[in-house]
Amino acid sequence: MQKFSPWKLLSSRTTYKNAWLAVREDSVITPTGSQGVYGVIESNDSVAVAALNDKNELYIHRIFRYPLQNWQWEVPGGGGDKEHAIQASKRELEEETGLKAEQWDILGVTGVCNGFMTEKMTTCLARGLSVVGDKEVSDEQTADGGFYSLEKIGAMIDSGEIQDGQTMTVLYLLQRWLEKNS
Amino acid sequence: MQKFSPWKLLSSRTTYKNAWLAVREDSVITPTGSQGVYGVIESNDSVAVAALNDKNELYIHRIFRYPLQNWQWEVPGGGGDKEHAIQASKRELEEETGLKAEQWDILGVTGVCNGFMTEKMTTCLARGLSVVGDKEVSDEQTADGGFYSLEKIGAMIDSGEIQDGQTMTVLYLLQRWLEKNS
Repeated sequence: MQKFSPWKLLSSRTTYKNAWLAVREDSVITPTGSQGVYGVIESNDSVAVAALNDKNELYIHRIFRYPLQNWQWEVPGGGGDKEHAIQASKRELEEETGLKAEQWDILGVTGVCNGFMTEKMTTCLARGLSVVGDKEVSDEQTADGGFYSLEKIGAMIDSGEIQDGQTMTVLYLLQRWLEKNS
Repeated sequence: MQKFSPWKLLSSRTTYKNAWLAVREDSVITPTGSQGVYGVIESNDSVAVAALNDKNELYIHRIFRYPLQNWQWEVPGGGGDKEHAIQASKRELEEETGLKAEQWDILGVTGVCNGFMTEKMTTCLARGLSVVGDKEVSDEQTADGGFYSLEKIGAMIDSGEIQDGQTMTVLYLLQRWLEKNS
């Protein structure tokens, strides 16, 4: 297997930046030898939380996703804000759901969209859940949160009610964990 | 459940554009009432191909992912180029692997990174496979392609050898299909 990069970098510039992401445009020689550009989206790494109750039900909620302009069923999560993944997951879980967990494990670290983005998502498993407070009022509008069986969630995916690919990545990792730990 | 958008759009401008993606910055009033910006990555919808042979083994290969600057194990796929998903999948599969399929099904349509991107990925199941030609020489450098059992692929995920979240989304959808169709 080739270990090296088949691309050559000529120069690099940041073409856009806001508080959450930057776009870097690299001038490159492509692997086939032509000159071109590669636009890379640089965003902070993120976390996704598989909050599992004693009945092996998973917490999902609807969140309004501005880029798609609609409400999406998802597991809790968000930007990592450069914290450790479990710290970030504790914060996101409590902010978005009012839940706290006794026990935390990391299920996997996965590229989100590796053709365009540098972002990696860490999936954290949260168990030993208790309600500690109200959800925080934030720009991430959430609704209809609750615990659902994995069978019900699978049926919601089959019907197209759940469409979030990142949540399916979490479900794949969670199912592997359950197969080995149940 | 709220059906409306909790965000108000004030104005919108394209801040970056190349052949594969554009970045749109919207000036908005956020759900909590403050003024801010939302940067949205607009890229074409994409396809991922679950190419399954008669032994229920899945085709995966390594592809050099420029944003991460490393080789990633993945299922074939790529930008949809505004074609129908199955047409795009046929093209991507043949270009990247030299394989052709007799039978095509759509397993699901999923948001890739719905906090930042508009992109939706359609997962297509390809069966009845035969080798039709050589892989095309392209900028998408691929290597080490072959058919692997789902157990082996699961073990490669456990060990961190496979890190691509989009491939795990495909695996989740494929496992659901296999449970219903085996």
